[in-house]
Amino acid sequence: MNSKSDRLLFVVDHAGTILFAMEGAFAAIAGNLDFFGVMVVSFATALGGGVLRDVLIGATPPQAIRDWRYAVSAFATGGAVFILHQFAHQIPSQLLMILDAAGLALFAVAGTQKALGYGIPPFIAILMGTITGVGGGAIRDILLMHIPIILYTDIYAIAALIGSAAMVLGRRLGLHPALSAVLGGVVCFSLRVCAVWFHWNLPRASVP
Amino acid sequence: MNSKSDRLLFVVDHAGTILFAMEGAFAAIAGNLDFFGVMVVSFATALGGGVLRDVLIGATPPQAIRDWRYAVSAFATGGAVFILHQFAHQIPSQLLMILDAAGLALFAVAGTQKALGYGIPPFIAILMGTITGVGGGAIRDILLMHIPIILYTDIYAIAALIGSAAMVLGRRLGLHPALSAVLGGVVCFSLRVCAVWFHWNLPRASVP
Amino acid sequence: MNSKSDRLLFVVDHAGTILFAMEGAFAAIAGNLDFFGVMVVSFATALGGGVLRDVLIGATPPQAIRDWRYAVSAFATGGAVFILHQFAHQIPSQLLMILDAAGLALFAVAGTQKALGYGIPPFIAILMGTITGVGGGAIRDILLMHIPIILYTDIYAIAALIGSAAMVLGRRLGLHPALSAVLGGVVCFSLRVCAVWFHWNLPRASVP
Repeated sequence: MNSKSDRLLFVVDHAGTILFAMEGAFAAIAGNLDFFGVMVVSFATALGGGVLRDVLIGATPPQAIRDWRYAVSAFATGGAVFILHQFAHQIPSQLLMILDAAGLALFAVAGTQKALGYGIPPFIAILMGTITGVGGGAIRDILLMHIPIILYTDIYAIAALIGSAAMVLGRRLGLHPALSAVLGGVVCFSLRVCAVWFHWNLPRASVP
Repeated sequence: MNSKSDRLLFVVDHAGTILFAMEGAFAAIAGNLDFFGVMVVSFATALGGGVLRDVLIGATPPQAIRDWRYAVSAFATGGAVFILHQFAHQIPSQLLMILDAAGLALFAVAGTQKALGYGIPPFIAILMGTITGVGGGAIRDILLMHIPIILYTDIYAIAALIGSAAMVLGRRLGLHPALSAVLGGVVCFSLRVCAVWFHWNLPRASVP
Repeated sequence: MNSKSDRLLFVVDHAGTILFAMEGAFAAIAGNLDFFGVMVVSFATALGGGVLRDVLIGATPPQAIRDWRYAVSAFATGGAVFILHQFAHQIPSQLLMILDAAGLALFAVAGTQKALGYGIPPFIAILMGTITGVGGGAIRDILLMHIPIILYTDIYAIAALIGSAAMVLGRRLGLHPALSAVLGGVVCFSLRVCAVWFHWNLPRASVP
């Protein structure tokens, strides 16, 4: 990977971190946490998925622990939302949803890529990509004592899963790794946005 | 270990995975989760204990991440229960309890064995065996926002603990490792089944 | 480090473990858990922060898993509280609070020290010190299905954070490591005790 694509990856990675930290801060403020609580939940939402992935694939210390810039991005965002949250609430929710879908796609693809690089089998690498995308939100929900929202509603985690699978499939079919990553990201993003727009949901078992 | 006992271990290990995945799927369906949620909870219930043990003893990536067949067993079971859960509910609960006790015994013994193999002190290896047996269920309960059932009811975790201890004791007394494992498994299984049949419970502190 | 300071560290480390295990046991008894549940919560409260830190910085197996004496301290304390909890309840709460602040200070400083020793960047090492101090309590709260108390009340985690930061700053300014550790510990302890005595709290965002 040349230094230009490294810089690009760094930019998009931090963009995802900032967006997820923002969502975490909103949830924490809605839960009436104090300043410290807002910072913790911002950090956990933004970086928890990647930390979980790195611990599971044996890439310790996790990237977000080794490189202090991730924590700074998460905390600065959390702090900004804490101060400005009355204005931040005025961001249109459709815009937030689209940015969130972009963050999900990015984290899923980056997580799959990293797991493959650590020699994890492709099927499990897809799961690791999914965890990277949704793990932070699940930790946020548990800290705030909600059942993780990904477990019972919406095409969210499944979009990350299918996007990761598309990326792995692309590589299997001989596509260039960068092209496979773009393919996976587009699949994940499109699925997520369409699911919201068209109110797609997964089936539930009818409890007798 | 010869290849015959390896095959045996593989078979019983996956038997435990399938049973615990089934229990996780029932709990997830009872909690009204969607298809993805059922899959996640099946996976976490079946493999969470072993993943936790492997992270704690430093055996990363954990076996269930390195070897994709564990995830396939868990997901296939979760999917089958999702589709067939009306029939699955007709399995007699006594049979389920006995199969569950067998899974607990197996996971406890296998977890203790693995921890000892990684040079963990015997006293802690007993704890690791217990975590292998009960960790998945505890993660399932937390995901579904219940206080982990092992914390407040029944001789369950304690059966895994005493079984693991019996195994370590057997090895200390010079028994063959395989015989010690059988001893630990039988102790755990018998304790658990008797506890259910005879309504044994652990004492509580009388809160003043 | 000479063997005298090693012995000192060992003594204060176990003092912190015993105190936090005691608090965990009280919380578990208040939650009506059985004997096994009290032991688990005692262990998790006393040692969960350090285990989390060690997993995150890649120091696996964590110290509390490698060295059985930590588990013995936690379990013996949990068992003693279980048996004697009617008497233990008579300990003045101000004394408990002061002992707890001492434990927090000690764990924060020891955690920061260890993270720095593993090459973690200073800013993240401060976070690791904080996690060491408050992680066990957060795990206890999640096991008992409470929102972690550190997220919404009191100058507690922030005292650990500022103490850890003071220690890192001291080392940056060229103070002797031992002196920096004492500085960090005193800052954390004083902040925590003053916060309780003078009813300091962190600001919350006013939810519109």
